[in-house]
Amino acid sequence: MKPFDNRPIGIFDSGLGGLTVAAALQHKLPGEAVAYLGDTARVPYGDKSVDAIIRFAHQDVEFMLSRGVKLVIAACNTVSAVALDSLKRDYPDRIILGVIDSGVRAVIDSGVERVAVIGTRATINSDAYRRGIHAADCSIRVESIACPLLVPLAEEGVTSGAIVPAVFDLYLGRLRNDPPDALLLGCTHYPLFAEALNDYFDGKVRILDSATACAKYTAEFLCEHHIAAHPGNTPSFGCFVTDMPSEFHRHATRFLGRAPGRVERINLA
Amino acid sequence: MKPFDNRPIGIFDSGLGGLTVAAALQHKLPGEAVAYLGDTARVPYGDKSVDAIIRFAHQDVEFMLSRGVKLVIAACNTVSAVALDSLKRDYPDRIILGVIDSGVRAVIDSGVERVAVIGTRATINSDAYRRGIHAADCSIRVESIACPLLVPLAEEGVTSGAIVPAVFDLYLGRLRNDPPDALLLGCTHYPLFAEALNDYFDGKVRILDSATACAKYTAEFLCEHHIAAHPGNTPSFGCFVTDMPSEFHRHATRFLGRAPGRVERINLA
Repeated sequence: MKPFDNRPIGIFDSGLGGLTVAAALQHKLPGEAVAYLGDTARVPYGDKSVDAIIRFAHQDVEFMLSRGVKLVIAACNTVSAVALDSLKRDYPDRIILGVIDSGVRAVIDSGVERVAVIGTRATINSDAYRRGIHAADCSIRVESIACPLLVPLAEEGVTSGAIVPAVFDLYLGRLRNDPPDALLLGCTHYPLFAEALNDYFDGKVRILDSATACAKYTAEFLCEHHIAAHPGNTPSFGCFVTDMPSEFHRHATRFLGRAPGRVERINLA
Repeated sequence: MKPFDNRPIGIFDSGLGGLTVAAALQHKLPGEAVAYLGDTARVPYGDKSVDAIIRFAHQDVEFMLSRGVKLVIAACNTVSAVALDSLKRDYPDRIILGVIDSGVRAVIDSGVERVAVIGTRATINSDAYRRGIHAADCSIRVESIACPLLVPLAEEGVTSGAIVPAVFDLYLGRLRNDPPDALLLGCTHYPLFAEALNDYFDGKVRILDSATACAKYTAEFLCEHHIAAHPGNTPSFGCFVTDMPSEFHRHATRFLGRAPGRVERINLA
């Protein structure tokens, strides 16, 4: 049996959001190489149809596999919510993980009784979080709220200041007077609002984050299946986008916590 | 010489925004049939690269021509700013009009001395408005400001309330204390903010609108070239989108001022 596997982990998202998963993963597993794909020519996915998202996700996975990755993470809640079953069916011999399962586990492990899940319109419409949480524990009260403006705000770098609480009021105003035990960030862009959300709820709501949870459970998966990289591995971080590599490079630091190195433009469609 | 031409006018945009041009056109020319295309699978265009926008615009025009239109309007400032020269070069025998030329003429005809142009990042980076205005009158002072959050706000239906002036502050705060004579809405989504902008500037800034201007100059063009529809024509309005026809239908009323009839999904890529 091969004790280590130094091949990269493939992480893909519609744009920048999945970098929060990459950051959490490399923080937890500094020896793992990563190949990251952002489908920036077609970002955002969250307001698009199920058919379109499934088609885009298949092209994303095909590219990831062409890079020789050992597993693929759909670091996009929208893809995980609406396309993961289709991907697993079409790639039965590959390991494809999604962020929804991680977010669900984070809720279950937290022991909360009432949680509000926020995400894109496609993620919330899929009802994937509520179904996943209730499959594990049907006593947990789940409210699901689509917050479509948060992705453009995060992509624009507006994560504090007067606009942010005004947008929270639009979507979360009614929760402020009747706060749940926890708020699950069901979109990989949303960790950038963690501090603003904590302020908005006066620290009274526990913030659970599908990106951090995904890194934690991926680490466990790699160890269980003996496919973690050698601890002495010097990992690479390859970035691929379908449009605007220099814009991506400029904004990536905000999501990744450091500069991403070279960003290469590729074609998918 | 044929005195009338009842073929439809083709109008395309990345999404809903171009419907403001269609609305203004049908208000001005009620006898004109319209075929409208919204590339909703790839919306928005405004944050994407010049290469991607040119590729998308060519596919949009090909589809419009396949519908037997008499002329094509690129009812998207982003496309008009970065792809119109390429389109005119590749379709020398077709009539392709853009909204930038109309916006420029609206500024010149208004007689203002100082104008602020607002638009998407791609439109503003192209510098097309400033170049166009200065080609006609280099004494006009032009400031250009990208306002990327306004498109997602308009698509989300948030065109009034606390968020809107907070977003105006982000982009236009410095203009509020030192207002220009006019503000040119260099994006077909922005007419939805006309009232909020008028309030923001306490009615002191004249609002010029590239969508209304485009309808005006298209009407003149049709008459000059003897290709207007017969006044007794009962016009059709055909809507085509690349994704989410029912969502498009639901939001279209806000842009068009009435329900759009049947919306058909088509594939471009």
